[in-house]
Amino acid sequence: MSILVVGSVAFDSVETPFGQVENVLGGSATYFATSASFFTDVNLVAVVGDDFPEEHLEFLRSRNIDLRGLTRTSGKTFHWKGKYGYDLNEAQTLETHLNVFESFRPEIPPEYADAEYLILANIDPDLQLEVLNQVKTPRVVACDTMNFWIASKSESLKKVIQRADFFIINEGEARQLSGESNLVKAARKILDFGAKTLIIKRGEYGVLMFRSSVFAAPAYPLEEVFDPTGAGDTFAGGFMGYLASTGDLSDDGLRRAIVFGSVMASFNVEDFSLNRLKSLQHREIEERYRNFKNLTHFQGLPLSK
Amino acid sequence: MSILVVGSVAFDSVETPFGQVENVLGGSATYFATSASFFTDVNLVAVVGDDFPEEHLEFLRSRNIDLRGLTRTSGKTFHWKGKYGYDLNEAQTLETHLNVFESFRPEIPPEYADAEYLILANIDPDLQLEVLNQVKTPRVVACDTMNFWIASKSESLKKVIQRADFFIINEGEARQLSGESNLVKAARKILDFGAKTLIIKRGEYGVLMFRSSVFAAPAYPLEEVFDPTGAGDTFAGGFMGYLASTGDLSDDGLRRAIVFGSVMASFNVEDFSLNRLKSLQHREIEERYRNFKNLTHFQGLPLSK
Repeated sequence: MSILVVGSVAFDSVETPFGQVENVLGGSATYFATSASFFTDVNLVAVVGDDFPEEHLEFLRSRNIDLRGLTRTSGKTFHWKGKYGYDLNEAQTLETHLNVFESFRPEIPPEYADAEYLILANIDPDLQLEVLNQVKTPRVVACDTMNFWIASKSESLKKVIQRADFFIINEGEARQLSGESNLVKAARKILDFGAKTLIIKRGEYGVLMFRSSVFAAPAYPLEEVFDPTGAGDTFAGGFMGYLASTGDLSDDGLRRAIVFGSVMASFNVEDFSLNRLKSLQHREIEERYRNFKNLTHFQGLPLSK
Repeated sequence: MSILVVGSVAFDSVETPFGQVENVLGGSATYFATSASFFTDVNLVAVVGDDFPEEHLEFLRSRNIDLRGLTRTSGKTFHWKGKYGYDLNEAQTLETHLNVFESFRPEIPPEYADAEYLILANIDPDLQLEVLNQVKTPRVVACDTMNFWIASKSESLKKVIQRADFFIINEGEARQLSGESNLVKAARKILDFGAKTLIIKRGEYGVLMFRSSVFAAPAYPLEEVFDPTGAGDTFAGGFMGYLASTGDLSDDGLRRAIVFGSVMASFNVEDFSLNRLKSLQHREIEERYRNFKNLTHFQGLPLSK
C-alpha cells in the first residue's frame, strides 16, 4: 500500500559540534517520505518556493516519491536554521522563515483521496484536520506535532489525536501535553485523549510505544552522531513505511515497525541532511535490524514451576 | 557462591517531590547486599557508629547477610542528605557527614579472603585496591565509583579498573572519566583502560553493557517512581547476585543478570529507603523479569535470502 505524507519541505542550515551546512534539503515531509520510500510508494503533499532546485526534485523522484501533490508557488521555500551542542538531543532554533509555508493550505489531489496510510507531519493542527477531511477512509493515520501547537492550539490538536492511530511525539512534548512529569502517567493521559497508540521518541534513549502493551526499543549506539536533524521524521517514515508494506497491524507487526523506524533514524543521524539516506542500501537496513535484535535480545525464564 | 560486598552503610535523609524521610537506612553496601541477598549468600564489610540501631542489623541478618565484617566504632554513622526534583535522574547532595566512615579501612575477615565474587562499592579507589590485595583469587570483581574520585584519584581508579571484570558507572561518570561526549566512544576508551566489561547506568533510560558485544536494556516503565536513592547499587546487587548464584559468565548469562539487576532496581525506586525490598517476594521478581521480556521482545528477520 502506498503512503500519503503531508508536511513541510524546507531548506535547513545546521550547525553541530562536528560541522555545519547551509541551505541543504530538509523538512519533516522530506525526511518522512524518503525514509518511507525504502519500504513502499509514497505520495507527497507539500509546498516549495520558486527557489527550490530541480536537483532536489530529481532526488525525490529517484526514490519513487510521487510529486503531483507538491505545489510550487512564487516566493521562497521554508528555511530553518538551528544549532546543536554536544547534547545532541536538543536543537536550538536560530531562525525560522516560513516563507511560502506560511500560507500553505494542503490540497489533496483527487487521486490521493483514497489513501489508506496517511502521515500528518508537524503542521498546524487545523490543517491536519483539513487533510483528514479530504482523505476519505484512511486505514491508518499517524500524526506528529510540536511544542508550539501544544501551547497554542491544544483543542484542535486533541481533535487530531482522537483520529490518530499513531500519535508520535517526543518525550518533552508528551510531558507538556499531559502536564505529567512521569512518562507512564503522561502516556496514560494522552491515550485517554483518544490516540489508539502513542509513540514517544527519546532521541539517543530510543522509543517507547504505549497501547494495551508497552514496548521499549533503545536507540542504536553509534560512535558518530553527526546531525540529529530529521531523526524523528525518519523514524516515523520507516515505521509507517514498514506497516504499509506489510499491512500487519498486530502487536508483533508494530514492534517490528518500531525497530525498522529506529534503524532508519540511526542511519539518518550519521550525516547532514538526507545524505546518508541517499546512499543507503536495503541490505544495510536488514543488517542493522539484525544488529538491533542482537543488541536487545536476552533469554526468557523457563515457565514458573 | 557467596558474594563479598565492601562499601558504606549509612543513614539517609531524602526529599523527593513525593515526600521525605529522615535518618532512614541507606548506604551503597546496604543496597548492594540486600539486593544480592535475593539470589545468594552475602558477606558484608563496612563500618557503622554506635548510634546504629539493632533493628537495622536485625533486618540485614533476616536477609541472611553475614555481618562478621561489619565493624561498629564509637562515633556517628555516615549520614547523607539529598534532594531530587521532578527530574529524578539527578540527586542534589545537601549534606555529607562521613563520620566513622572517614577513617574506614576495610579489613577483610580471614574467612572471607577466599571470596570468589567481590563487589567494591563506591569508596576511595585506594581502599578498593587495599581490598583487592586482601582477597586472594576472586573469580569476579565488580566495582563502582563516583565523580569525586574520577576528579581527584584517577590514577588509583585506573588501577582498580584494570582489575575489574565489571566496571559499573553512570552515564555522566563515563563521559567525565573518558573525556568523550559520545557514549560509544566513551565506552571504548574505558574498555581500553582495562575493564573487561563496562556497564553504564542511565537511570530511567536503562542500562548499556559494553564488551565484545553491546547489550541495551531499558528501565522498567513505572507509574510511581518514589525515590531513586540506591537504584544503581540495587541494580549492581541483583546483577552480581544472579551471576554468583548461577556461575554463568557467558554473554547470555550476563544479559540475564543485567535484566535481573534492572528488575531489582525497578522495585527499589517504588518506595523510600529499602522499604520495597523489605516486602519483596521471589515470585514478584520472576513476574517482572517476564514483563521485561515482553517489554523488549520483537521478532527477528528471517535469514537473508
